[in-house]
Amino acid sequence: MKLKVKDVDIATGGVRIIILNSADAQKLDLHHMDRVMVRKSNRKITAVVDIAESEKAVPKGRIGLMEEVLDDVNAKEGDIVDIKLAKKPESVSYIKKKLDGKRLNYNQIKEIIKDITLNNLTDIELTTFVTSYYIRKSDMQEVADLTRAMIETGEKLNFDKGKIIVDLHSIGGVPNNRTTMIVVPILVAAGYKFPKTSSRAITSPAGTADTMEVLCSVKHSVQKLKRIIKKVGGFIVWGGSVNLAPADDRIIQVERPLSIDSEAQMMASIMAKKASVGSTHLLLEIPVGRETKIKRKSRAEHLKKRFRSLGRKMGIKVKTIICNGNEPVGNGIGPVLEARDVLWILKGDKRGPSDLKNKSLMMAGNLLNFVGATTRGRKMAKEILESGKAYEAFIRIVKAQGGKEIDPDSLKAGRFSYDVCSERDGYISGFDNQGIARVARIAGAPRDKKAGIYLYKHAGDKVKKGDKIFTIYTENKIKLSYAKEAMKKTKTYILRSRKTHL
Amino acid sequence: MKLKVKDVDIATGGVRIIILNSADAQKLDLHHMDRVMVRKSNRKITAVVDIAESEKAVPKGRIGLMEEVLDDVNAKEGDIVDIKLAKKPESVSYIKKKLDGKRLNYNQIKEIIKDITLNNLTDIELTTFVTSYYIRKSDMQEVADLTRAMIETGEKLNFDKGKIIVDLHSIGGVPNNRTTMIVVPILVAAGYKFPKTSSRAITSPAGTADTMEVLCSVKHSVQKLKRIIKKVGGFIVWGGSVNLAPADDRIIQVERPLSIDSEAQMMASIMAKKASVGSTHLLLEIPVGRETKIKRKSRAEHLKKRFRSLGRKMGIKVKTIICNGNEPVGNGIGPVLEARDVLWILKGDKRGPSDLKNKSLMMAGNLLNFVGATTRGRKMAKEILESGKAYEAFIRIVKAQGGKEIDPDSLKAGRFSYDVCSERDGYISGFDNQGIARVARIAGAPRDKKAGIYLYKHAGDKVKKGDKIFTIYTENKIKLSYAKEAMKKTKTYILRSRKTHL
Repeated sequence: MKLKVKDVDIATGGVRIIILNSADAQKLDLHHMDRVMVRKSNRKITAVVDIAESEKAVPKGRIGLMEEVLDDVNAKEGDIVDIKLAKKPESVSYIKKKLDGKRLNYNQIKEIIKDITLNNLTDIELTTFVTSYYIRKSDMQEVADLTRAMIETGEKLNFDKGKIIVDLHSIGGVPNNRTTMIVVPILVAAGYKFPKTSSRAITSPAGTADTMEVLCSVKHSVQKLKRIIKKVGGFIVWGGSVNLAPADDRIIQVERPLSIDSEAQMMASIMAKKASVGSTHLLLEIPVGRETKIKRKSRAEHLKKRFRSLGRKMGIKVKTIICNGNEPVGNGIGPVLEARDVLWILKGDKRGPSDLKNKSLMMAGNLLNFVGATTRGRKMAKEILESGKAYEAFIRIVKAQGGKEIDPDSLKAGRFSYDVCSERDGYISGFDNQGIARVARIAGAPRDKKAGIYLYKHAGDKVKKGDKIFTIYTENKIKLSYAKEAMKKTKTYILRSRKTHL
Repeated sequence: MKLKVKDVDIATGGVRIIILNSADAQKLDLHHMDRVMVRKSNRKITAVVDIAESEKAVPKGRIGLMEEVLDDVNAKEGDIVDIKLAKKPESVSYIKKKLDGKRLNYNQIKEIIKDITLNNLTDIELTTFVTSYYIRKSDMQEVADLTRAMIETGEKLNFDKGKIIVDLHSIGGVPNNRTTMIVVPILVAAGYKFPKTSSRAITSPAGTADTMEVLCSVKHSVQKLKRIIKKVGGFIVWGGSVNLAPADDRIIQVERPLSIDSEAQMMASIMAKKASVGSTHLLLEIPVGRETKIKRKSRAEHLKKRFRSLGRKMGIKVKTIICNGNEPVGNGIGPVLEARDVLWILKGDKRGPSDLKNKSLMMAGNLLNFVGATTRGRKMAKEILESGKAYEAFIRIVKAQGGKEIDPDSLKAGRFSYDVCSERDGYISGFDNQGIARVARIAGAPRDKKAGIYLYKHAGDKVKKGDKIFTIYTENKIKLSYAKEAMKKTKTYILRSRKTHL
């Protein structure tokens, strides 16, 4: 059937959707959520049908195309396109199979992951995939197959075969966990390859990629990354620019609103990203705490075992550190403030927060022991850091990624600021990570690199009435007022009359 | 935050959606799928956030509102509305609880069903509800609670307490299963109350409501229905107009594209509709066959037990008939052609298809035995039918619903027709119900009441080359060409050289 295009000024971001008038839909016996093939001359794509009951939305004889579809078939308002019924993707029947508790083989899993990557599945189908893998158990072979499918549908950065390639992953939840930017240069200074892809913030005020971006570009081609590794031994870039295991992004769109995480899918997407860069040794950090992804020690222990087992199947050695995830680490929160903390530590400046330094040394030390560089990893890490070699390696990485050496004191937070002071005498018994993150985001972080929060106090500290607890920074006066407004409704820190141990 | 309305010319049909520019979303720290309260003077509603990355779709400072939201807050292009972050509905946390395999209590279930009815849940949340109930087992108490929640969130038509109120339900799958229009008048003629709500076609060429609509209106107010029952003892109306257990409609929107059916939800929505009209005796028909909903006898037997048990909890006696669902019943397919079959049978005309007559007598007889009218139900049903009393009762019902007595021979099928003839000698070994339904729908059924198919042959019949097997009818010449086109790709009947028993 030939229809005239109506340009619908919307992008769905997800599956391609076309809108038909109900009369036209009936002619072709098409229903809501059916698939059609849309063709304009030699361009054709498959899209999902939405049905407009009113002539106002989409009149008879016309077809509403959203931006993605317009682009895909190269059509504009008033053009004629041809549509016909198309089949559901095969992968939908495999998703149903998993829903029914059956085991999928590699080819079936790959077909699903491919369709997720190509945005061929509706929210309904994708949610069924996610909830099925959430409820139905997967044995280790199925998780490995899922991992392989994710690797196959994304880019691969395999570097020097046979060499040790180290990697690090933290299973989310602690704001300003900027250890990566300290651990990578320590390991690189010790002679190891460390191709680190990091995420941008989703619900936090900064991801490692956002913070690194204060100093240099975090988007590079695969070719460029291979050259960087060869030249300086490591990089810290945004994973999204490299397109490793891209199915993950679309799956997260469904998991986030439900606040769920399918274990098989989470494990597969982490391991796929590591395998895609050829990692041989992975240090996995699992912060456990009230506000982190993993609430209980027992679940962390379970994941530890499963990851080791998955690592064996994928040829990656995995070592897991389970740690306390209840406190923010570092003083700065937001890209610029976090980058400054990192540079201070790397340069041996006393203003560098000791909690972040200690945690980074612990992790770098663990990695050094893990790869067999020494049996006293922490000591070795401390020597490399304090000798300035880690700082030198970091600057080499920054320069290779197109940045230059920057004096941390030239990193200034936003022009507008607001001090949050204690209303009375007492003790800080803790911070509310989510509240702090929320205020920092409303102040503009991470897009406004200079926005964020700087903490002066830590859990256990004594405060007097009027003492500054933290400062909110932003480049935008209006955002400062929004952030102050949000402070009234958001718990950010807990003040007690007496010192208490959490 | 105050934003200027952009009228987005689309209706989603599902949850209310607003579209923000990504810059505005960031100011409020809002993400895709978050909830916001949208307010214009004293009108306010909760909607789900979609984020536009481009200025073209929704510019900064503006808010894209779809038709439902514009109506709900009484806003138009250029108006100013206020938005603020709203919480997720409580029901989402209950859905997650079920996803995690925990049991829900009545209040939690009712909260979910209420939000489904009010269109407060996104496709992602609703799919999670459906897949969770599909995978996780529900005990009979939970199914009963689900049933009660569905009753409570819809209209109720409770008539005379204490009297016998009969009902009939067929668990889908057989085209032209128009027994209802014969069974209802037989039971009404025997003195029983029979308030029958029926569905319209979703994927078939006609539902009972579509066929009844050929003769009279099938949309009536609850008040009117109470008067009709009092006056003539029964009605046959479209359930959708009465709003019984309305959550069902939205749930089906998710189940249809997945072709799944959560047993608990299916049982609850059927029983809720029956309980909403005060039924005391329900005859449940489960057709079993390749192309029906229930493929295996064992599953039919399982459902039989579960329905009896649910009936006990709801105070409804349930009798189940498991029958063969592999063949179409009757000759006409499509509203007018089916209505003519029914009238011929009720009037004792020999052209009435005997398979439909026999099946109707079997079911009416079962119901008469079930309510204790006799021990020889089929005989009694046959007497009532052949005496013309069923026809009289039927005409009283038609008149009460605003129709008049119609000569079945005045019911003409579509002006345009196409005869499908046998290409060679042989035996019809069967029909493909889905293929037949597809062609009839493309010809225009059920919206075009006169469109459809008339079968001259049945399974087992001998045919010679050139014999008419069926005729396709339509009022629309173009649709006839579509239907002929579809015939080339669709299996409708199976011709064998030798007589075979299926």
